[in-house]
Amino acid sequence: MPGTKKRGRQTVVFDTPPILSSWASIVGPKEGEGPWGNDFDLIMPDYLLGEETWEKAENKMLKQTIELALDKSGLNPQDAEVLLAGDLLNQLVSSNFAAAQLSIPFLGLYGACSTMVEAILTGSMLVDGGFYERVAAAACSHHYTAERQFRFPTEQGVQKPPSSQWTATAAGAVILESSGSGPRVTSATVGRVIDMGQTDANDMGSAMAPAAADTIRMHLQDLNRLPDYYDLIITGDLGKLGMAILGQLFVRDGVVPQPNYSDCGVLLYDGKQDIGSGGSGCGCAASMLCGPLLKKMFKAEIKKLLLVATGALMSPITSFQGSTIPAIAHAVAIEY
Amino acid sequence: MPGTKKRGRQTVVFDTPPILSSWASIVGPKEGEGPWGNDFDLIMPDYLLGEETWEKAENKMLKQTIELALDKSGLNPQDAEVLLAGDLLNQLVSSNFAAAQLSIPFLGLYGACSTMVEAILTGSMLVDGGFYERVAAAACSHHYTAERQFRFPTEQGVQKPPSSQWTATAAGAVILESSGSGPRVTSATVGRVIDMGQTDANDMGSAMAPAAADTIRMHLQDLNRLPDYYDLIITGDLGKLGMAILGQLFVRDGVVPQPNYSDCGVLLYDGKQDIGSGGSGCGCAASMLCGPLLKKMFKAEIKKLLLVATGALMSPITSFQGSTIPAIAHAVAIEY
Repeated sequence: MPGTKKRGRQTVVFDTPPILSSWASIVGPKEGEGPWGNDFDLIMPDYLLGEETWEKAENKMLKQTIELALDKSGLNPQDAEVLLAGDLLNQLVSSNFAAAQLSIPFLGLYGACSTMVEAILTGSMLVDGGFYERVAAAACSHHYTAERQFRFPTEQGVQKPPSSQWTATAAGAVILESSGSGPRVTSATVGRVIDMGQTDANDMGSAMAPAAADTIRMHLQDLNRLPDYYDLIITGDLGKLGMAILGQLFVRDGVVPQPNYSDCGVLLYDGKQDIGSGGSGCGCAASMLCGPLLKKMFKAEIKKLLLVATGALMSPITSFQGSTIPAIAHAVAIEY
Repeated sequence: MPGTKKRGRQTVVFDTPPILSSWASIVGPKEGEGPWGNDFDLIMPDYLLGEETWEKAENKMLKQTIELALDKSGLNPQDAEVLLAGDLLNQLVSSNFAAAQLSIPFLGLYGACSTMVEAILTGSMLVDGGFYERVAAAACSHHYTAERQFRFPTEQGVQKPPSSQWTATAAGAVILESSGSGPRVTSATVGRVIDMGQTDANDMGSAMAPAAADTIRMHLQDLNRLPDYYDLIITGDLGKLGMAILGQLFVRDGVVPQPNYSDCGVLLYDGKQDIGSGGSGCGCAASMLCGPLLKKMFKAEIKKLLLVATGALMSPITSFQGSTIPAIAHAVAIEY
């Protein structure tokens, strides 16, 4: 019966929660040097992976991450019935080329840094909706392809303010199945696009924090839950500044700041230099989920996780034209 | 029970086919002068709609189209539970700004000119899957925003080869509901990304024809249907050249060329000058569906329609780097 899985305004609850049967992550050299290096499947020796361009390297990184996630379950690309994926590049070229090489039916998603959660929640609806038994969901970003698309030629060496974030070179992929064992996607909250009038592309955390606050508040309200239902509530990549703003918004909204709250963008490079306010990019939340976080779930160190990936949705053209930066946040609850 | 709605390799069949309860289309001046001018809801008087930039005009066109589709059913934006939409612009700015203004929970999709069908098929899965009762699906393109993003500054007046296509200024939106009356989305085929090694961005029809052939062949095979099951099989925007190539691929694949086959890109500007091989852009198939085609279905002139929207997935950066143009085609069967 249609509509029976919806709770409140923006949240859906799965009848038969899709299983995360396997997952994989590949990260760049800088990400591998961070505190979670041992938790990723593969650390790239350099940013080119034997390719001629950073763009081709990003494509290869994503393709290999999806293959690795399938391989861990003894599967081939043709065993995945559909691939939901996205990246930061114009026209989703990294995902499109990977989908062409893997020959898996493909739905391209764009949610900026929120893409991994958009893929997991949409994929979970397609599995629980009875359409597929096995779906691949993936996202990636590459520091140097993003820099030259969104900001300045890397060679120019433009200085950045401390509020800016470092686009992660990273990819994550999960396999969602209708049955089996593993962590389960139990509910999801689709975000609204929130535009608070912020225009500084060097401070995406401030633009994204209100979207994260809105989605977390709606998720808890829709399911009538308190924040401490979760062992960990983790945002995608607000960075230090965005996290501080979200903390204030929690107070405003009556969501008491919780010791169980953290941010993938802050965690990814903890203690590293030159990353400004923290990590960002589709690959940030994707690799943190498909590396450290799911590893902790597998070891039962985290049993209930709310992953809230955030995306800033400006383009260089609209920023140049003085437009504001709309932002979005999608949430998935994963339980094991 | 998961997976029970899948047929063959790439097709899903809906248990309770979602209803297209209302729809709307807005087109630009050139599209309004074409043979279908009377079938669109609104023809823009110019390309700016009172805005300062073409980008803001595209955003406004999409927002108004979604509002108009809702209004025809007596609905407000808050009555739509989720919006699935996309456009051609980097980071989907037209869709993101529209989603921010409408405040509908949003899932951004990128399938280039195939986006409208990607939105309808994904939205149909979310409705039939039991997650939502009312979903909005929309797509748009604007000739002048696309020209300056993908090709050359409009003011430069670069000449184009006859194989090139004219990006339509157009938007289409549909409201999908779990119950009610209207044409029904009965099945859908998710396309694979096909890369035949074509590199000429001025000949997208040739790049996209093999993807259309692949999806149509899979759709017919998965459902064990002959092409004459449909009153009309219509591709998104292959243009004249792409249509001719698809005709040859039909012969190769044993899908006999049918009198019931046509192409939105060829039809949109029939008889107009300076449009090269035909129309293109997300708005081409979206406006043809939400104008002439659904009007014909409503009048029972077409009872069974297979809409196969095609997308060429190159970016200016990958084209500049000499990469090929991968392409995709998604199909939805609409019956009334």
